[in-house]
Amino acid sequence: MADHGYRLVIGDKNYSSWSLRPWLAMKHFGVPFEEEYIVLRRGLETKQSILDHSPSGKVPALKTDGFLVWDSLAILEFLAERHREARWWPEDERARAEARGVSAEMHAGFQALRNDMPMDLVSTLPTPEITEPLQHNIARVVAIWNGARKTYGAEGPFLFGRFSIADAMYAPVATRFKTFQVDLSEFGDDGRAAEYGETILAMPEMAEWLAGAKVEMAERYPDVT
Amino acid sequence: MADHGYRLVIGDKNYSSWSLRPWLAMKHFGVPFEEEYIVLRRGLETKQSILDHSPSGKVPALKTDGFLVWDSLAILEFLAERHREARWWPEDERARAEARGVSAEMHAGFQALRNDMPMDLVSTLPTPEITEPLQHNIARVVAIWNGARKTYGAEGPFLFGRFSIADAMYAPVATRFKTFQVDLSEFGDDGRAAEYGETILAMPEMAEWLAGAKVEMAERYPDVT
Repeated sequence: MADHGYRLVIGDKNYSSWSLRPWLAMKHFGVPFEEEYIVLRRGLETKQSILDHSPSGKVPALKTDGFLVWDSLAILEFLAERHREARWWPEDERARAEARGVSAEMHAGFQALRNDMPMDLVSTLPTPEITEPLQHNIARVVAIWNGARKTYGAEGPFLFGRFSIADAMYAPVATRFKTFQVDLSEFGDDGRAAEYGETILAMPEMAEWLAGAKVEMAERYPDVT
Repeated sequence: MADHGYRLVIGDKNYSSWSLRPWLAMKHFGVPFEEEYIVLRRGLETKQSILDHSPSGKVPALKTDGFLVWDSLAILEFLAERHREARWWPEDERARAEARGVSAEMHAGFQALRNDMPMDLVSTLPTPEITEPLQHNIARVVAIWNGARKTYGAEGPFLFGRFSIADAMYAPVATRFKTFQVDLSEFGDDGRAAEYGETILAMPEMAEWLAGAKVEMAERYPDVT
Protein backbone atom coordinates (compact mmCIF):
# COMPACT_ATOMS: atom_id res chain seq x y z
CA MET A 1 0.00 0.00 0.00
CA ALA A 2 1.30 3.45 -0.91
CA ASP A 3 2.47 5.49 2.06
CA HIS A 4 0.29 8.57 2.29
CA GLY A 5 2.11 9.80 5.37
CA TYR A 6 -1.08 9.67 7.39
CA ARG A 7 -0.98 11.18 10.86
CA LEU A 8 -4.08 10.59 12.97
CA VAL A 9 -4.62 13.17 15.71
CA ILE A 10 -6.39 11.47 18.59
CA GLY A 11 -7.36 12.12 22.20
CA ASP A 12 -6.73 9.94 25.25
CA LYS A 13 -7.32 6.32 24.30
CA ASN A 14 -9.21 5.66 27.51
CA TYR A 15 -11.76 8.42 26.93
CA SER A 16 -11.89 9.44 23.28
CA SER A 17 -14.50 7.24 21.69
CA TRP A 18 -14.48 9.34 18.52
CA SER A 19 -10.73 8.82 18.13
CA LEU A 20 -11.14 5.05 18.44
CA ARG A 21 -13.43 4.85 15.42
CA PRO A 22 -11.06 5.81 12.55
CA TRP A 23 -8.08 4.35 14.45
CA LEU A 24 -9.75 0.93 14.63
CA ALA A 25 -10.75 0.91 10.98
CA MET A 26 -7.29 2.04 9.79
CA LYS A 27 -5.64 -0.67 11.88
CA HIS A 28 -8.11 -3.31 10.70
CA PHE A 29 -7.72 -2.45 7.03
CA GLY A 30 -3.94 -2.20 7.32
CA VAL A 31 -3.57 1.47 6.45
CA PRO A 32 -0.28 2.70 7.96
CA PHE A 33 -0.32 5.87 10.05
CA GLU A 34 1.45 7.67 12.84
CA GLU A 35 -0.40 8.84 15.94
CA GLU A 36 -0.39 12.36 17.32
CA TYR A 37 -1.77 12.86 20.79
CA ILE A 38 -3.92 15.50 22.36
CA VAL A 39 -4.16 15.17 26.13
CA LEU A 40 -7.81 15.77 26.94
CA ARG A 41 -9.22 17.19 30.18
CA ARG A 42 -6.75 20.03 30.60
CA GLY A 43 -9.18 22.86 29.95
CA LEU A 44 -7.91 25.72 27.84
CA GLU A 45 -4.59 24.04 27.09
CA THR A 46 -6.46 21.11 25.55
CA LYS A 47 -8.76 23.41 23.61
CA GLN A 48 -5.90 25.39 22.06
CA SER A 49 -3.95 22.27 21.35
CA ILE A 50 -6.92 20.77 19.48
CA LEU A 51 -7.57 23.98 17.55
CA ASP A 52 -3.95 23.90 16.39
CA HIS A 53 -4.77 20.61 14.69
CA SER A 54 -8.44 20.71 13.79
CA PRO A 55 -10.62 23.64 12.70
CA SER A 56 -13.76 22.19 14.30
CA GLY A 57 -12.01 22.14 17.66
CA LYS A 58 -12.53 18.39 17.96
CA VAL A 59 -10.55 15.21 17.62
CA PRO A 60 -9.98 13.04 15.67
CA ALA A 61 -8.41 14.66 12.63
CA LEU A 62 -6.36 13.07 9.86
CA LYS A 63 -3.36 14.77 8.28
CA THR A 64 -2.48 13.66 4.78
CA ASP A 65 -0.60 14.95 1.74
CA GLY A 66 -0.61 18.51 3.02
CA PHE A 67 -4.22 18.80 4.08
CA LEU A 68 -6.45 17.93 6.97
CA VAL A 69 -9.58 15.79 7.15
CA TRP A 70 -11.71 16.11 10.25
CA ASP A 71 -14.70 14.52 11.88
CA SER A 72 -14.70 10.77 12.50
CA LEU A 73 -17.32 9.89 9.87
CA ALA A 74 -15.81 12.21 7.25
CA ILE A 75 -12.39 10.63 7.83
CA LEU A 76 -13.90 7.17 7.39
CA GLU A 77 -15.71 8.13 4.16
CA PHE A 78 -12.51 9.77 2.89
CA LEU A 79 -10.46 6.64 3.54
CA ALA A 80 -13.20 4.35 2.18
CA GLU A 81 -12.94 6.21 -1.14
CA ARG A 82 -9.17 6.39 -1.24
CA HIS A 83 -8.64 2.74 -0.28
CA ARG A 84 -11.63 1.41 -2.15
CA GLU A 85 -10.08 -2.02 -2.71
CA ALA A 86 -10.40 -2.79 1.02
CA ARG A 87 -14.20 -2.35 0.95
CA TRP A 88 -14.78 -0.25 4.07
CA TRP A 89 -18.52 -0.39 3.40
CA PRO A 90 -20.51 -3.53 2.47
CA GLU A 91 -20.44 -4.29 -1.25
CA ASP A 92 -24.16 -4.90 -1.62
CA GLU A 93 -25.97 -1.60 -2.16
CA ARG A 94 -28.80 -2.33 0.24
CA ALA A 95 -26.45 -3.50 2.99
CA ARG A 96 -24.28 -0.46 2.36
CA ALA A 97 -27.28 1.86 2.71
CA GLU A 98 -28.21 0.17 5.98
CA ALA A 99 -24.62 0.38 7.23
CA ARG A 100 -24.53 4.07 6.38
CA GLY A 101 -27.87 4.56 8.14
CA VAL A 102 -26.82 3.00 11.43
CA SER A 103 -23.42 4.72 11.25
CA ALA A 104 -25.09 8.09 10.74
CA GLU A 105 -27.47 7.39 13.63
CA MET A 106 -24.49 6.74 15.90
CA HIS A 107 -22.72 9.82 14.58
CA ALA A 108 -25.59 12.20 15.32
CA GLY A 109 -27.54 10.59 18.12
CA PHE A 110 -27.54 8.49 21.28
CA GLN A 111 -27.04 11.55 23.46
CA ALA A 112 -28.19 9.89 26.69
CA LEU A 113 -25.89 6.92 26.12
CA ARG A 114 -22.97 9.24 25.45
CA ASN A 115 -23.67 11.45 28.49
CA ASP A 116 -24.58 8.80 31.05
CA MET A 117 -22.14 6.10 29.97
CA PRO A 118 -19.02 7.84 28.65
CA MET A 119 -16.20 5.64 27.40
CA ASP A 120 -13.82 4.73 30.20
CA LEU A 121 -12.05 1.60 29.02
CA VAL A 122 -9.88 0.83 32.02
CA SER A 123 -12.71 1.09 34.54
CA THR A 124 -15.59 -1.06 35.71
CA LEU A 125 -18.40 1.15 36.95
CA PRO A 126 -21.92 0.75 38.33
CA THR A 127 -24.75 0.78 35.81
CA PRO A 128 -26.21 4.30 35.84
CA GLU A 129 -29.89 4.96 36.50
CA ILE A 130 -31.76 3.80 33.41
CA THR A 131 -33.71 6.93 32.50
CA GLU A 132 -36.22 6.76 29.68
CA PRO A 133 -33.87 8.34 27.10
CA LEU A 134 -31.09 5.95 28.13
CA GLN A 135 -33.52 3.00 27.96
CA HIS A 136 -34.48 4.02 24.41
CA ASN A 137 -30.86 4.45 23.37
CA ILE A 138 -29.74 1.06 24.64
CA ALA A 139 -32.81 -0.68 23.19
CA ARG A 140 -32.14 0.95 19.82
CA VAL A 141 -28.51 -0.23 19.80
CA VAL A 142 -29.70 -3.74 20.68
CA ALA A 143 -32.29 -3.61 17.87
CA ILE A 144 -29.63 -2.49 15.38
CA TRP A 145 -27.14 -5.16 16.45
CA ASN A 146 -29.76 -7.94 16.60
CA GLY A 147 -31.24 -6.97 13.27
CA ALA A 148 -27.93 -6.74 11.43
CA ARG A 149 -26.59 -9.97 12.92
CA LYS A 150 -29.81 -11.80 12.07
CA THR A 151 -29.67 -10.65 8.46
CA TYR A 152 -25.93 -10.84 7.79
CA GLY A 153 -24.79 -13.41 10.37
CA ALA A 154 -24.03 -16.07 7.77
CA GLU A 155 -21.50 -13.77 6.07
CA GLY A 156 -19.22 -13.20 9.05
CA PRO A 157 -19.12 -12.15 12.72
CA PHE A 158 -19.52 -8.39 12.27
CA LEU A 159 -22.67 -6.30 11.83
CA PHE A 160 -22.74 -6.72 8.07
CA GLY A 161 -20.65 -9.89 7.91
CA ARG A 162 -17.18 -8.56 7.16
CA PHE A 163 -15.85 -5.71 9.34
CA SER A 164 -17.10 -2.35 8.03
CA ILE A 165 -17.25 1.29 9.07
CA ALA A 166 -20.46 0.47 10.96
CA ASP A 167 -18.44 -1.72 13.32
CA ALA A 168 -15.93 1.05 13.86
CA MET A 169 -18.81 3.38 14.74
CA TYR A 170 -20.30 0.99 17.32
CA ALA A 171 -17.07 -0.36 18.83
CA PRO A 172 -16.97 2.25 21.63
CA VAL A 173 -20.52 1.27 22.57
CA ALA A 174 -19.42 -2.32 23.11
CA THR A 175 -16.80 -1.06 25.58
CA ARG A 176 -19.37 1.08 27.40
CA PHE A 177 -21.71 -1.85 27.89
CA LYS A 178 -18.79 -3.71 29.46
CA THR A 179 -17.58 -0.79 31.62
CA PHE A 180 -21.09 -0.11 32.93
CA GLN A 181 -22.02 -3.80 33.19
CA VAL A 182 -25.17 -3.53 31.09
CA ASP A 183 -27.18 -6.74 30.73
CA LEU A 184 -28.45 -6.46 27.15
CA SER A 185 -31.07 -9.17 27.67
CA GLU A 186 -32.97 -6.59 29.73
CA PHE A 187 -33.18 -4.43 26.61
CA GLY A 188 -34.60 -6.94 24.16
CA ASP A 189 -31.43 -8.78 23.19
CA ASP A 190 -31.97 -12.30 21.87
CA GLY A 191 -28.31 -13.05 22.60
CA ARG A 192 -26.95 -11.84 19.28
CA ALA A 193 -26.13 -8.33 20.53
CA ALA A 194 -24.17 -9.59 23.54
CA GLU A 195 -22.27 -12.00 21.30
CA TYR A 196 -21.49 -9.21 18.85
CA GLY A 197 -20.17 -7.04 21.71
CA GLU A 198 -17.79 -9.88 22.62
CA THR A 199 -16.67 -10.11 18.99
CA ILE A 200 -15.70 -6.44 19.03
CA LEU A 201 -13.91 -6.67 22.36
CA ALA A 202 -11.97 -9.74 21.17
CA MET A 203 -10.49 -7.97 18.15
CA PRO A 204 -6.67 -7.84 18.38
CA GLU A 205 -6.84 -4.18 17.33
CA MET A 206 -9.05 -3.48 20.36
CA ALA A 207 -6.51 -5.19 22.61
CA GLU A 208 -3.80 -2.95 21.15
CA TRP A 209 -5.90 0.19 21.79
CA LEU A 210 -6.69 -0.94 25.34
CA ALA A 211 -3.02 -1.60 26.08
CA GLY A 212 -2.25 1.91 24.86
CA ALA A 213 -5.01 3.30 27.08
CA LYS A 214 -3.51 1.63 30.14
CA VAL A 215 -0.04 3.02 29.45
CA GLU A 216 -1.44 6.50 28.86
CA MET A 217 -3.54 6.47 32.01
CA ALA A 218 -0.53 5.59 34.15
CA GLU A 219 1.50 8.37 32.50
CA ARG A 220 -1.10 11.10 32.24
CA TYR A 221 -3.53 10.50 35.06
CA PRO A 222 -1.53 8.83 37.84
CA ASP A 223 -4.20 9.88 40.36
CA VAL A 224 -6.95 8.03 38.50
CA THR A 225 -5.40 4.63 38.01
CA MET B 1 -32.70 9.48 -15.68
CA ALA B 2 -34.06 6.06 -14.72
CA ASP B 3 -37.11 6.17 -12.48
CA HIS B 4 -36.19 4.53 -9.20
CA GLY B 5 -39.64 5.13 -7.77
CA TYR B 6 -38.15 7.20 -4.96
CA ARG B 7 -40.51 8.22 -2.18
CA LEU B 8 -39.07 10.69 0.34
CA VAL B 9 -40.75 10.59 3.76
CA ILE B 10 -40.55 14.06 5.25
CA GLY B 11 -41.94 16.07 8.15
CA ASP B 12 -43.63 19.45 8.10
CA LYS B 13 -41.83 21.69 5.66
CA ASN B 14 -41.95 24.62 8.06
CA TYR B 15 -40.21 22.76 10.88
CA SER B 16 -38.31 19.75 9.60
CA SER B 17 -34.83 20.97 8.81
CA TRP B 18 -33.56 17.42 8.38
CA SER B 19 -36.21 16.73 5.74
CA LEU B 20 -35.21 19.83 3.80
CA ARG B 21 -31.65 18.60 3.30
CA PRO B 22 -32.17 15.56 1.01
CA TRP B 23 -35.28 17.17 -0.53
CA LEU B 24 -33.28 20.22 -1.64
CA ALA B 25 -30.44 18.16 -3.09
CA MET B 26 -32.80 15.81 -4.95
CA LYS B 27 -34.66 18.78 -6.44
CA HIS B 28 -31.44 20.55 -7.34
CA PHE B 29 -29.92 17.52 -9.04
CA GLY B 30 -33.17 16.67 -10.83
CA VAL B 31 -33.79 13.30 -9.20
CA PRO B 32 -37.54 12.61 -9.45
CA PHE B 33 -39.40 11.54 -6.30
CA GLU B 34 -42.78 11.56 -4.62
CA GLU B 35 -43.26 13.02 -1.17
CA GLU B 36 -44.86 11.26 1.78
CA TYR B 37 -45.79 13.39 4.75
CA ILE B 38 -45.56 12.88 8.45
CA VAL B 39 -47.39 15.54 10.41
CA LEU B 40 -45.06 16.44 13.27
CA ARG B 41 -46.08 17.73 16.70
CA ARG B 42 -48.94 15.31 17.31
CA GLY B 43 -47.26 13.32 20.09
CA LEU B 44 -47.78 9.57 20.01
CA GLU B 45 -49.61 9.60 16.69
CA THR B 46 -46.58 11.26 15.08
CA LYS B 47 -44.21 8.84 16.76
CA GLN B 48 -46.06 5.75 15.55
CA SER B 49 -46.49 7.19 12.13
CA ILE B 50 -42.75 7.81 11.83
CA LEU B 51 -41.88 4.35 13.15
CA ASP B 52 -44.10 2.87 10.44
CA HIS B 53 -41.75 4.44 7.94
CA SER B 54 -38.34 4.62 9.54
CA PRO B 55 -36.64 2.24 12.00
CA SER B 56 -34.71 5.03 13.70
CA GLY B 57 -37.97 6.80 14.54
CA LYS B 58 -36.87 9.90 12.65
CA VAL B 59 -37.53 11.60 9.36
CA PRO B 60 -36.40 11.87 6.63
CA ALA B 61 -36.35 8.39 5.11
CA LEU B 62 -36.08 7.40 1.45
CA LYS B 63 -37.99 4.46 -0.01
CA THR B 64 -36.50 2.90 -3.11
CA ASP B 65 -36.60 -0.39 -5.00
CA GLY B 66 -38.10 -2.27 -2.06
CA PHE B 67 -35.86 -0.99 0.70
CA LEU B 68 -35.49 1.97 2.97
CA VAL B 69 -32.61 4.39 3.48
CA TRP B 70 -32.70 6.58 6.54
CA ASP B 71 -30.85 9.47 8.12
CA SER B 72 -30.36 12.64 6.11
CA LEU B 73 -26.61 12.24 5.58
CA ALA B 74 -26.86 8.52 4.75
CA ILE B 75 -29.58 9.31 2.18
CA LEU B 76 -27.34 11.95 0.62
CA GLU B 77 -24.31 9.61 0.46
CA PHE B 78 -26.54 6.88 -1.00
CA LEU B 79 -27.83 9.16 -3.73
CA ALA B 80 -24.38 10.62 -4.39
CA GLU B 81 -23.16 7.11 -5.18
CA ARG B 82 -26.15 6.07 -7.23
CA HIS B 83 -26.28 9.29 -9.26
CA ARG B 84 -22.55 9.78 -9.44
CA GLU B 85 -22.71 11.64 -12.77
CA ALA B 86 -24.36 14.62 -11.03
CA ARG B 87 -21.37 15.11 -8.69
CA TRP B 88 -23.12 15.61 -5.34
CA TRP B 89 -19.72 16.15 -3.72
CA PRO B 90 -16.90 18.35 -5.09
CA GLU B 91 -14.72 16.56 -7.64
CA ASP B 92 -11.40 17.63 -6.15
CA GLU B 93 -10.42 15.23 -3.36
CA ARG B 94 -9.31 17.91 -0.94
CA ALA B 95 -12.45 19.99 -1.48
CA ARG B 96 -14.53 16.84 -1.13
CA ALA B 97 -12.85 16.00 2.19
CA GLU B 98 -13.54 19.50 3.43
CA ALA B 99 -17.15 19.34 2.25
CA ARG B 100 -17.59 16.03 4.04
CA GLY B 101 -16.01 17.51 7.16
CA VAL B 102 -18.32 20.50 7.40
CA SER B 103 -21.33 18.34 6.50
CA ALA B 104 -20.47 15.86 9.26
CA GLU B 105 -20.02 18.75 11.72
CA MET B 106 -23.51 19.97 10.90
CA HIS B 107 -24.88 16.44 11.13
CA ALA B 108 -23.54 15.78 14.61
CA GLY B 109 -23.20 19.18 16.22
CA PHE B 110 -24.48 22.72 16.63
CA GLN B 111 -26.78 21.68 19.47
CA ALA B 112 -27.29 25.21 20.83
CA LEU B 113 -28.12 26.54 17.38
CA ARG B 114 -30.63 23.75 16.84
CA ASN B 115 -32.25 24.15 20.26
CA ASP B 116 -32.33 27.93 20.51
CA MET B 117 -33.08 28.73 16.87
CA PRO B 118 -35.24 25.90 15.51
CA MET B 119 -36.29 26.14 11.87
CA ASP B 120 -39.55 28.04 11.51
CA LEU B 121 -39.61 29.23 7.91
CA VAL B 122 -42.82 31.20 7.87
CA SER B 123 -42.03 33.24 11.00
CA THR B 124 -39.90 36.22 11.87
CA LEU B 125 -38.83 35.96 15.50
CA PRO B 126 -36.69 37.92 17.97
CA THR B 127 -33.03 36.95 18.19
CA PRO B 128 -32.69 34.68 21.22
CA GLU B 129 -30.27 35.41 24.04
CA ILE B 130 -26.77 34.77 22.68
CA THR B 131 -25.44 32.30 25.23
CA GLU B 132 -21.81 31.21 25.01
CA PRO B 133 -22.60 27.89 23.25
CA LEU B 134 -24.86 29.70 20.77
CA GLN B 135 -22.16 32.33 20.18
CA HIS B 136 -19.65 29.57 19.42
CA ASN B 137 -22.06 27.78 17.09
CA ILE B 138 -22.89 30.87 15.04
CA ALA B 139 -19.24 31.95 14.88
CA ARG B 140 -18.26 28.47 13.68
CA VAL B 141 -20.90 28.53 10.91
CA VAL B 142 -19.65 31.96 9.86
CA ALA B 143 -16.04 30.70 9.85
CA ILE B 144 -17.03 27.70 7.70
CA TRP B 145 -19.01 29.81 5.23
CA ASN B 146 -16.39 32.57 5.05
CA GLY B 147 -13.56 30.09 4.64
CA ALA B 148 -15.23 28.02 1.93
CA ARG B 149 -16.41 31.07 -0.03
CA LYS B 150 -12.96 32.63 0.19
CA THR B 151 -11.31 29.48 -1.16
CA TYR B 152 -13.89 28.37 -3.73
CA GLY B 153 -15.66 31.63 -4.55
CA ALA B 154 -14.22 31.82 -8.07
CA GLU B 155 -15.81 28.48 -8.96
CA GLY B 156 -19.42 29.40 -8.25
CA PRO B 157 -21.77 30.89 -5.65
CA PHE B 158 -22.06 27.90 -3.31
CA LEU B 159 -19.77 26.76 -0.50
CA PHE B 160 -17.52 24.74 -2.79
CA GLY B 161 -18.39 26.54 -6.01
CA ARG B 162 -21.05 24.29 -7.52
CA PHE B 163 -23.95 23.22 -5.29
CA SER B 164 -23.00 20.17 -3.21
CA ILE B 165 -24.27 18.14 -0.27
CA ALA B 166 -22.57 20.66 2.03
CA ASP B 167 -25.01 23.34 0.83
CA ALA B 168 -27.95 21.02 1.47
CA MET B 169 -26.66 20.48 5.00
CA TYR B 170 -26.36 24.21 5.75
CA ALA B 171 -29.48 25.46 3.92
CA PRO B 172 -31.70 25.23 7.03
CA VAL B 173 -29.16 27.35 8.91
CA ALA B 174 -29.53 30.12 6.34
CA THR B 175 -33.29 30.12 7.03
CA ARG B 176 -32.72 30.24 10.79
CA PHE B 177 -30.46 33.26 10.53
CA LYS B 178 -33.25 34.98 8.60
CA THR B 179 -36.08 33.89 10.93
CA PHE B 180 -34.16 34.98 14.02
CA GLN B 181 -32.72 38.11 12.36
CA VAL B 182 -29.11 37.31 13.15
CA ASP B 183 -26.58 39.92 12.07
CA LEU B 184 -23.64 37.77 10.99
CA SER B 185 -21.23 40.70 11.04
CA GLU B 186 -21.42 40.49 14.84
CA PHE B 187 -20.00 36.98 14.61
CA GLY B 188 -16.94 37.63 12.50
CA ASP B 189 -18.52 37.70 9.04
CA ASP B 190 -16.56 39.62 6.42
CA GLY B 191 -19.72 39.79 4.30
CA ARG B 192 -19.24 36.53 2.49
CA ALA B 193 -21.38 34.50 4.91
CA ALA B 194 -24.34 36.88 4.68
CA GLU B 195 -24.05 36.85 0.90
CA TYR B 196 -23.96 33.07 0.86
CA GLY B 197 -27.10 32.94 3.04
CA GLU B 198 -28.85 35.10 0.44
CA THR B 199 -27.68 32.75 -2.31
CA ILE B 200 -29.31 29.80 -0.53
CA LEU B 201 -32.55 31.68 0.16
CA ALA B 202 -32.74 32.79 -3.49
CA MET B 203 -32.64 29.23 -4.88
CA PRO B 204 -35.85 28.42 -6.78
CA GLU B 205 -35.97 25.07 -4.97
CA MET B 206 -36.03 26.93 -1.64
CA ALA B 207 -38.92 29.06 -2.91
CA GLU B 208 -40.77 25.86 -3.80
CA TRP B 209 -40.17 24.38 -0.33
CA LEU B 210 -41.26 27.64 1.34
CA ALA B 211 -44.46 27.77 -0.73
CA GLY B 212 -45.18 24.21 0.38
CA ALA B 213 -44.52 25.17 4.00
CA LYS B 214 -47.04 28.00 3.80
CA VAL B 215 -49.76 25.76 2.36
CA GLU B 216 -49.11 23.11 4.99
CA MET B 217 -49.17 25.58 7.86
CA ALA B 218 -52.57 26.92 6.78
CA GLU B 219 -53.91 23.35 6.50
CA ARG B 220 -52.32 21.71 9.50
CA TYR B 221 -51.80 24.48 12.02
CA PRO B 222 -54.56 27.03 11.37
CA ASP B 223 -54.10 28.44 14.88
CA VAL B 224 -50.44 29.24 14.26
CA THR B 225 -50.64 31.13 10.98
